[in-house]
Amino acid sequence: MRSVTIGLLGCGTVGGGFVSLLEREHARIGRRYGLNLSIGRILVREAARARAGIDRARLTTSAVDVIDHCDLAVELVGGVNSAGAYVRRALSRGCDVVTANKALLADRGAELFELAARHEARIGFEASVCGGLPIIRALGRGLAGDSIDSIEGILNGTCNYVLTRMEEGLDFDDALRDAQRLGFAEADPSLDVDGSDAAQKLQILAELAFDLPMVSSEVMSLRGVTRRTVTKALSRGRVIRQIATAERRGSGVMLRVATQEIPRSHALASVRNEMNGVVIRGRAVGEVLLVGRGAGSMPTAAAVLSDVVELAVSRPSSSHYLT
Amino acid sequence: MRSVTIGLLGCGTVGGGFVSLLEREHARIGRRYGLNLSIGRILVREAARARAGIDRARLTTSAVDVIDHCDLAVELVGGVNSAGAYVRRALSRGCDVVTANKALLADRGAELFELAARHEARIGFEASVCGGLPIIRALGRGLAGDSIDSIEGILNGTCNYVLTRMEEGLDFDDALRDAQRLGFAEADPSLDVDGSDAAQKLQILAELAFDLPMVSSEVMSLRGVTRRTVTKALSRGRVIRQIATAERRGSGVMLRVATQEIPRSHALASVRNEMNGVVIRGRAVGEVLLVGRGAGSMPTAAAVLSDVVELAVSRPSSSHYLT
Repeated sequence: MRSVTIGLLGCGTVGGGFVSLLEREHARIGRRYGLNLSIGRILVREAARARAGIDRARLTTSAVDVIDHCDLAVELVGGVNSAGAYVRRALSRGCDVVTANKALLADRGAELFELAARHEARIGFEASVCGGLPIIRALGRGLAGDSIDSIEGILNGTCNYVLTRMEEGLDFDDALRDAQRLGFAEADPSLDVDGSDAAQKLQILAELAFDLPMVSSEVMSLRGVTRRTVTKALSRGRVIRQIATAERRGSGVMLRVATQEIPRSHALASVRNEMNGVVIRGRAVGEVLLVGRGAGSMPTAAAVLSDVVELAVSRPSSSHYLT
Repeated sequence: MRSVTIGLLGCGTVGGGFVSLLEREHARIGRRYGLNLSIGRILVREAARARAGIDRARLTTSAVDVIDHCDLAVELVGGVNSAGAYVRRALSRGCDVVTANKALLADRGAELFELAARHEARIGFEASVCGGLPIIRALGRGLAGDSIDSIEGILNGTCNYVLTRMEEGLDFDDALRDAQRLGFAEADPSLDVDGSDAAQKLQILAELAFDLPMVSSEVMSLRGVTRRTVTKALSRGRVIRQIATAERRGSGVMLRVATQEIPRSHALASVRNEMNGVVIRGRAVGEVLLVGRGAGSMPTAAAVLSDVVELAVSRPSSSHYLT
């Protein structure tokens, strides 16, 4: 049995879900993977506030305290600056890091992966794109033997929820309010609506799938889509979806996030509500479709925990673990 | 750059596809993964027969010759007895093995994994279930953090092809002949039709997904489905599919392969022709759907090559490689 102490940076929606998921799955992971996973210290903004199911003695407001007393760091604070500093510190100690932070990877990915390689540490980021959908492993590993020609995906659950509710007759603003009420939307929903959330996820997927430079990038906001646009498409047997596309174009890759009208026979037309879906086209494998819950506390926590298990299992025994 | 010599056991449909796929992807895999993959010797039945694109000097009729001169063995001969002996010899040498052989894994899996562990070797078997669909990684890794409640899948492309062609008015026998002509069917199509092909794949998936004993198993043949059954279902807005189900039942797992009538809204209803589809239900992630090409030379070869890349990349540097 290998004991691994997890340093948890951030204890919001996903962090709280992670704590309760690990508690539920601890025994199974022990039996199945020979791992005794435990949470060491937890970085929070207010250490005095009580949190259901969390031992208050673990809480700290010092990131250094968390990072310097763990075998593996889980970064769930979000944002780029503090999160980047925490991840850098952990990697520099040779600690593996698991993160759900798409903004950080889209912005500083190259630098962080380079730092990780220098310190023989690894970064798990399955949770950064499409929550519980194992798309990062599918692209980085499952399809490693094939050349990818294109990726086409519904990567933002809020936009998809808004569009499918509009098919039922809701206005854009009412549908968006519903998505916020149900907790699908980002804290700032303009990141969903203006396409930048999907664009960040698309960039992470494209960097995994293609070893080519990005030659063009276009991002279109969902605003401007009216109920009339949606019902007119329906009347022609078609649907409106926000689709993120990465495609080979000559010696480079073209990225685009756009509101598109697609036929009902399209693989992504049946992806409804807050679900995410991705179609990968490989030269040898043809079309592979993945559909699942792209956001939410538990699906994202499950992706984080899957990365933790994989990194902990595959870590060479000579290395970092304290115990 | 790490050089890895692959010993290829079997050079039929998938083996031939593997040789040409590796040739096409060699440079990309070198750049991307730092691997120089090359094929050493190739086991064939007739070494004198010329094969397009394959250097005849590599061909041999001696399995020992292949296994004892490689860093990693790819087993594509099929069947249980000879294939089992080859895999055992390779693992006993500490060689990693990649196999597409579902019958071998369903029959001797436990013994082979135990042997692999004893010799610090690994077995890649993504290609054994659903060809190009990365379902093994999704279950074994991508969802490692979650408890799986059920798996439901269209695992046999031939049966699915037959059923969807029958929706267009074909008889069972005509549709099956078409599947054979197009190369989807197993060499002996009764393994497809009687459900045993799907049952073997289901068993491999269930062993990956659940750490519980199998408490019951039921396999129903596709024979008996008539054009009338299919059109009657269609007239009710439903479709007939061969569905393989693995489900928690108390403290065990129930396995079933059966011809079922499902509503059009079911995630698997839109899986048509020779495609495969799997719905995984996890407690935290909810429903995850994967759809893709489950058989055929190139999709299966791509799954084999993906396993080769992953095993070669992650092999500790101190170990087996000759060069």
